[in-house]
Amino acid sequence: MTFPVVGMVGGGQLARMTHEAGIPLGLKFKLLSDTPQDSAAQVVGEVVVGDYRDLETLRAFARGCDVITFDHEHVPTEHLRALEADGIPVRPGPDALVHAQDKGVMRARLTEIGAPCPRHRIVADPADATAFAEEVGGFPVILKTVRGGYDGKGVWVVRSEADAAEPFRAGVPVLAEEKVDFVRELAANIVRSPHGQAVAYPVVESIQVDGVCDTVIAPAPDLDERLAGEAQQLALRIAAELGVVGHLAVELFETRGPDGEPGILVNELAMRPHNSGHWTQDGAVTSQFANHVRAVLDLPLGDPRPRATWTVMSNVLGGDYPDMYQAYLHCMARDPQLKIHMYGKDVKPGRKVGHVNTYGDDLADVRERARHAADYLRGTITE
Amino acid sequence: MTFPVVGMVGGGQLARMTHEAGIPLGLKFKLLSDTPQDSAAQVVGEVVVGDYRDLETLRAFARGCDVITFDHEHVPTEHLRALEADGIPVRPGPDALVHAQDKGVMRARLTEIGAPCPRHRIVADPADATAFAEEVGGFPVILKTVRGGYDGKGVWVVRSEADAAEPFRAGVPVLAEEKVDFVRELAANIVRSPHGQAVAYPVVESIQVDGVCDTVIAPAPDLDERLAGEAQQLALRIAAELGVVGHLAVELFETRGPDGEPGILVNELAMRPHNSGHWTQDGAVTSQFANHVRAVLDLPLGDPRPRATWTVMSNVLGGDYPDMYQAYLHCMARDPQLKIHMYGKDVKPGRKVGHVNTYGDDLADVRERARHAADYLRGTITE
Repeated sequence: MTFPVVGMVGGGQLARMTHEAGIPLGLKFKLLSDTPQDSAAQVVGEVVVGDYRDLETLRAFARGCDVITFDHEHVPTEHLRALEADGIPVRPGPDALVHAQDKGVMRARLTEIGAPCPRHRIVADPADATAFAEEVGGFPVILKTVRGGYDGKGVWVVRSEADAAEPFRAGVPVLAEEKVDFVRELAANIVRSPHGQAVAYPVVESIQVDGVCDTVIAPAPDLDERLAGEAQQLALRIAAELGVVGHLAVELFETRGPDGEPGILVNELAMRPHNSGHWTQDGAVTSQFANHVRAVLDLPLGDPRPRATWTVMSNVLGGDYPDMYQAYLHCMARDPQLKIHMYGKDVKPGRKVGHVNTYGDDLADVRERARHAADYLRGTITE
Repeated sequence: MTFPVVGMVGGGQLARMTHEAGIPLGLKFKLLSDTPQDSAAQVVGEVVVGDYRDLETLRAFARGCDVITFDHEHVPTEHLRALEADGIPVRPGPDALVHAQDKGVMRARLTEIGAPCPRHRIVADPADATAFAEEVGGFPVILKTVRGGYDGKGVWVVRSEADAAEPFRAGVPVLAEEKVDFVRELAANIVRSPHGQAVAYPVVESIQVDGVCDTVIAPAPDLDERLAGEAQQLALRIAAELGVVGHLAVELFETRGPDGEPGILVNELAMRPHNSGHWTQDGAVTSQFANHVRAVLDLPLGDPRPRATWTVMSNVLGGDYPDMYQAYLHCMARDPQLKIHMYGKDVKPGRKVGHVNTYGDDLADVRERARHAADYLRGTITE
């Protein structure tokens, strides 16, 4: 058979779960991983250990792949252009991916296409950040390094000019944004293929704790139907305008206008399978991972509709106990419907080492089951 | 983490799909495969290429595994005993597995525990087969070599003494069975763990074409409720009596008594994930593969209940065209809810190279979709 070879750059859990989703599709999967112990490297057949920042390593890896896609957004843009010049399809391509790599570029482009964003501008130094704060009604404001941040890293809530010194220390351009008084966080996830077919998952609510995604509820409870449609349309439009191929997560703030009317603002973009889409593994007809891989191969996309009334995902973070196996056993015994997804990572406090999915008709019950399992696995509760 | 290492002997599609199911469980998976091109060997990280008939190969493979389980039933019983003597848990163990390896042993034991079987006995030669035929009301009768058969191989429908010569040529003992006048074929699939926890999947209808499983409907339509319960109880009892650990498929004939009362007779046993359970990947809360691996590790079992009113599985057999990719693309485009499971095997006419699952509320529609996809992939239809 001439089933294609998918080259995945990066060995994290997103690559691990994309490989899992690719097995039934009959695809060949090749991994470029930093170490042989990385989450995905443990379970993939063909693993190349190497540094994605090195162009010759990437080039050698890409040889024999029908397409290159990513576990993360850190591959230098110029390397992606070099691969494209070599004739290797890179999906999402560098012209799209730069918007997920550089928050300054992202904000400029979103503003250009009329996507609703928090007020923002690049600031030169702490004094300029203070000037920005005055423009938007005063401190606190958000400062972000334009590159290299994730999971709350590279993001500061700044309450004074003195506070504003820290973000500039890395020597990376700094983007200032107004601190949005939001009702909650949402995510609009879509998948788009090179020839323009696209599917939209239901808009979900994403609950963050300490800047890290904790729980995702699909669909977002009590979400205004018109707003849900707008959020999906917005994500589809962003994908089309930016030329995204594969999974696009548009993280959103849900806001209330002066008369209480609901609205949305774009917070972040991610161009790869995303934590806010993990619920789809057990809660949707086609998971984000299966649809991502179908999209990057320009295969017809699968049905994104939910299979249950409610699906809840809770992340499992590492706690104080390095060995989760007994807790895992307990959780399986307590809830035979629980879907556990472990990443094969060593436990470190606060590190994402897995997630659980639950589904059903009673949202309170579905949430409690996910919460209990995540807390029990972490060791925050013992019964 | 001290997550266990599962050693899987055999590199076929059952091993491939068990690996897929083990990834979210965070397990380490090690494969003993005949060749590096085998279905599972393409997708598993740690592959040992070697011959399972060689004890030293098996021993070296088993070192560092927490449990050994199987893709097929062909490992010599004495080798399994040797591994057990080395202290390696073998699941299912040799005392159970022998009943799936040797049809003579299976029939004797099932009869002993009162499980309903077709009339049968070991026959010495064609004349003895003729004598058996007279005992059960005349030809045709079924002859089977007690070892080595699968998918209709090693099974003969014998209509005369002359016909009966062929089965004896292999020099393997031959079992004669009455040819059952059955209504249809069913399968009762259960999973049992070492400490005796067990779960039963809904009883399914299995439709065979030329001795090969073609389509499975879950649950079996219009099945008498009492009979369904009896079939599940029977499978659970067989598993307990024989000490089965892991997935047990009990293939059954559904019969009608003289007054039209429904009954069942045991046809075959398989002690591993089984073709009649492939529907569970997309149609049950916990798949047979996930529950098999949970059982062999003595982890609590997952919920076996269906997620849809009807789930239909149809096998994809190889046809005349070696390249299925265009057909596969067409099927995805036609039915965005279709679940395709390809095994990564080269297409040969009649070879099982994948299966499709469909589910929904309208059985006729669900069957048609599976049928269309399987036929289109094989190349029997072109629109």
